[in-house]
Amino acid sequence: MTSTPPSDAGIRLGANQHGKAEVRLVKVTRDTPTHTIEDLNVSSQLRGDFETAFTEGDNAHVHATDTQKNVVYAKARELGVGSPESFLLALADYWGGQEFVEGSLMKAEQYAWERIETNDHSFVRKGQETRTAVVNAYGDERFVVSGLTDLVVLKSTGSEFTGFPRDRYTTLAETNDRILATAVTAWWRWSELPEDFNAAYDEIRAILLDTFADIHSLALQQTIYGMGVAVMERFPGVAEFKISCPNKHHFLVDLTPFGLDNPNEVFYAADRPYGLIQATLDRDGAVPEPRAWASVPGFA
Amino acid sequence: MTSTPPSDAGIRLGANQHGKAEVRLVKVTRDTPTHTIEDLNVSSQLRGDFETAFTEGDNAHVHATDTQKNVVYAKARELGVGSPESFLLALADYWGGQEFVEGSLMKAEQYAWERIETNDHSFVRKGQETRTAVVNAYGDERFVVSGLTDLVVLKSTGSEFTGFPRDRYTTLAETNDRILATAVTAWWRWSELPEDFNAAYDEIRAILLDTFADIHSLALQQTIYGMGVAVMERFPGVAEFKISCPNKHHFLVDLTPFGLDNPNEVFYAADRPYGLIQATLDRDGAVPEPRAWASVPGFA
Amino acid sequence: MTSTPPSDAGIRLGANQHGKAEVRLVKVTRDTPTHTIEDLNVSSQLRGDFETAFTEGDNAHVHATDTQKNVVYAKARELGVGSPESFLLALADYWGGQEFVEGSLMKAEQYAWERIETNDHSFVRKGQETRTAVVNAYGDERFVVSGLTDLVVLKSTGSEFTGFPRDRYTTLAETNDRILATAVTAWWRWSELPEDFNAAYDEIRAILLDTFADIHSLALQQTIYGMGVAVMERFPGVAEFKISCPNKHHFLVDLTPFGLDNPNEVFYAADRPYGLIQATLDRDGAVPEPRAWASVPGFA
Amino acid sequence: MTSTPPSDAGIRLGANQHGKAEVRLVKVTRDTPTHTIEDLNVSSQLRGDFETAFTEGDNAHVHATDTQKNVVYAKARELGVGSPESFLLALADYWGGQEFVEGSLMKAEQYAWERIETNDHSFVRKGQETRTAVVNAYGDERFVVSGLTDLVVLKSTGSEFTGFPRDRYTTLAETNDRILATAVTAWWRWSELPEDFNAAYDEIRAILLDTFADIHSLALQQTIYGMGVAVMERFPGVAEFKISCPNKHHFLVDLTPFGLDNPNEVFYAADRPYGLIQATLDRDGAVPEPRAWASVPGFA
Repeated sequence: MTSTPPSDAGIRLGANQHGKAEVRLVKVTRDTPTHTIEDLNVSSQLRGDFETAFTEGDNAHVHATDTQKNVVYAKARELGVGSPESFLLALADYWGGQEFVEGSLMKAEQYAWERIETNDHSFVRKGQETRTAVVNAYGDERFVVSGLTDLVVLKSTGSEFTGFPRDRYTTLAETNDRILATAVTAWWRWSELPEDFNAAYDEIRAILLDTFADIHSLALQQTIYGMGVAVMERFPGVAEFKISCPNKHHFLVDLTPFGLDNPNEVFYAADRPYGLIQATLDRDGAVPEPRAWASVPGFA
Repeated sequence: MTSTPPSDAGIRLGANQHGKAEVRLVKVTRDTPTHTIEDLNVSSQLRGDFETAFTEGDNAHVHATDTQKNVVYAKARELGVGSPESFLLALADYWGGQEFVEGSLMKAEQYAWERIETNDHSFVRKGQETRTAVVNAYGDERFVVSGLTDLVVLKSTGSEFTGFPRDRYTTLAETNDRILATAVTAWWRWSELPEDFNAAYDEIRAILLDTFADIHSLALQQTIYGMGVAVMERFPGVAEFKISCPNKHHFLVDLTPFGLDNPNEVFYAADRPYGLIQATLDRDGAVPEPRAWASVPGFA
Repeated sequence: MTSTPPSDAGIRLGANQHGKAEVRLVKVTRDTPTHTIEDLNVSSQLRGDFETAFTEGDNAHVHATDTQKNVVYAKARELGVGSPESFLLALADYWGGQEFVEGSLMKAEQYAWERIETNDHSFVRKGQETRTAVVNAYGDERFVVSGLTDLVVLKSTGSEFTGFPRDRYTTLAETNDRILATAVTAWWRWSELPEDFNAAYDEIRAILLDTFADIHSLALQQTIYGMGVAVMERFPGVAEFKISCPNKHHFLVDLTPFGLDNPNEVFYAADRPYGLIQATLDRDGAVPEPRAWASVPGFA
Repeated sequence: MTSTPPSDAGIRLGANQHGKAEVRLVKVTRDTPTHTIEDLNVSSQLRGDFETAFTEGDNAHVHATDTQKNVVYAKARELGVGSPESFLLALADYWGGQEFVEGSLMKAEQYAWERIETNDHSFVRKGQETRTAVVNAYGDERFVVSGLTDLVVLKSTGSEFTGFPRDRYTTLAETNDRILATAVTAWWRWSELPEDFNAAYDEIRAILLDTFADIHSLALQQTIYGMGVAVMERFPGVAEFKISCPNKHHFLVDLTPFGLDNPNEVFYAADRPYGLIQATLDRDGAVPEPRAWASVPGFA
């Protein structure tokens, strides 16, 4: 996207986008007596030839954010959802064909439900985590980033932290047995789209959990790197993997003033501050695509 | 609790309590290689002969809130948790034996975790809902209220709303098929304590879900009343049951401007405003115990 | 409100209410070029002869929650807002005249705005606190409780905490100079309504701030009691005053490992746990009115 | 930052950082009887030669996140805060001199307090907005981005939205008089640092408010562009300005079913969805510095 010519004061409009955020969409599929539901929070933003709205208040090119909302609901009826990624791709394709539009940013959160056993149309919210998807469109190019957030996990043993530098400001004791707890946020960029985004999501979620459990952790860094490697080894279509994990500290409570020992049993779960470990994994030889990540805070 | 004598201005100190709120406690049981974890948020408050702290700033009777926090951690080590109700009862009993204390309010939230299959000490947070417990102590009396909050459920059909009064301010259309969605908050007071609070909780949670699913709903009122009746029929030890349910509106999107029909498939999930239905169920002949509910907002 | 006859299982419907929560109302008064805005979050609930909705799914008496929402907006146009208390009283009076209605609970939050100086129709949100109001109606009786929440205040000195009991579980050190910080939630019940609710609110907010500042605090208990006394002395129409204050702990950071002193300068502001001090003040000779407080958690 | 050599599976560690987030720091300056307080939420993260922690669990280079927290508190004592920007620069400089460190990301939020009039050491939280600062360090280079978030503003008139494209999916009516409301998030990158960050912040906040008020708005786009231009014209040291504004919709309530008109007086303030307008303004000739923005989601 090119900037506008500078104003008299030498100021230009640069990158910009406008749209409707957090369009809450619940889609019921009722073709059979056994219903399914898809529960999403969709955000739609457009990029393109919209400068005069900024510089002159001229809206002749501005597809109203209300219209963008309408398209979300209409396309859900016309095409169904299927997966958040495929739905966002359909939205990006629709808008790609509209006047003045040069690209778009489509995002979604999806919330999981499970069927209440005794019934074919009743559901209860499942899990803590939220599935996420981002599609960045630039002309005919499409970048798809899948992910999840708030996958809260904990190991009650099998985690150490030792061997770090000690200097004037270091007071932390080394430990060979601590609680390791985090809320995983991860994103993975597809260089080749999977056949079934939903199956891939379920499998990646399981890989993240299993790898977290399996690694005897010498550092949260090691654990999250291992989680990313496991995902990328299983899915060659994942070209980049980003992960951001708070170290949710669980401090062993000192019970000695009360005449009690505490053999790693009683912990205080702290809120703030928390450690924060963030990393990107790249596939060797893959072309970096910063445009795929425009809406995600970077790590360097 | 009696009020103090009035001040010169004719003002008395009435009911009061002090303590430590939101003590985050994670208890690991590691007697065997297969660990279990209990994850709670405990609040401890005392009532008693503490007036001079208010009227004169004299703390001679005031068990520090920091001390109350210490007791939570120490008792977790000395006694274990077991269930939130039994743990709160132990806290109430401990404080009942201390000088100046006439009663207490002990509260807890408990968060559910499930084991990651492949591992005996790794866990992932389960479900959306939070289990709750409240113990009110007055001298030797103990009132136990168990509960849950944020149990999010939805029916994609099997819900109607018709036959309500129509007046000048009524615009709502009748419907024979709508989405019914809510986030259940419920509390139940035990006149006889169950043998196993955890088993009772699991069963009541299942009854709430199954009853929500089973009732063909003519009103959210009818659904929640049925949920309470089902719990109280199964558990004679439940003397009172309270339930508070937002009606989380899912509005059918009007797609006719786009030339599309919408046969109950595409919905907008609204945030605010929401309906709010609240009810108490009493067991015939049970003695009402308002003191059990001191910390819960009443409905009338 | 009387309970229904018991069901076959001996279960009765007790207290209940239904309505619309969190109706977001912004009222612009534009009689002159200088606009004013009133920004409220209103909740409306009715009590009365609504049992068959619960027991049979018969809605013939149920004033729809959607209708209750419509009344909020219509009355804002018909009558204006004026103050949250007067607006809620108008709502309660309207509903008091409708069939099947025996009482109501009307609540509001109001958010403060201040004018952007240079302009007569532009505003910026002011302050952190939220003004609150509750009207409980039972037949022709009206109970009005005004209040505020999240009034965040801090003293950087002038606060001590000493002389509290020391026992096995006490580790807290005494201090003659600590930070005292809290977020005040307070409610006051009017036995005689003030002429001008808005002026009374402004004055009470100022009294709370000034009294917090003026008292050399020997305990947070003493401070909040003094705040209540000051309000009740100034306003004889306030019959009861309730206050709930977290002790937002600011811990002095131990800098000695780094070779630094810390003369009450560098603090860590903790989130959880926090102290929690709650009290009621009564006017001598005033009739207690528990029905005024039905929607507020009690303290004993 | 260079990637590591690829693993056997052809996977490399790319950009990464680790640190301590949300270190809550309250600094009291008590040199005179009139105290001042600085209330911040600081996050510290390091970039550098930390790969073996990820790939091997070797922490020999990993400055513990706990140590980073300690440095925040120690530097607050050693150097004071002054402004969030100058404090973050001091942290970045400290860490820049430590082994294995090649760069850092330092962030802060600052919360405003105002003095309670009658007192020299008592304060009440002021305003809704949060001041923000980000320092990105790469070797000896420093990039400083100042900002604010949640500056909530509203115009009760003087806002139109007309002339936008109408197509199959457009249902929005044009309007010549609507409420315009938003919560401003803005960031500005300094190519030349101001002498006094605090004075610059106060002035920029005032410019944002005054410009919001002054512009007769034909589009939220036009308003936010004007706000950015006004800031950049006043401060030549601001090389880039980014702004993200939700359009917080206030819908005129249709009161005609109740026989009432609504001459732009009664509005429903909606939560979701909301419009979202985001833009960057560049100074003509300024060198773009994407590294300054690594922690901020981009707009294209």
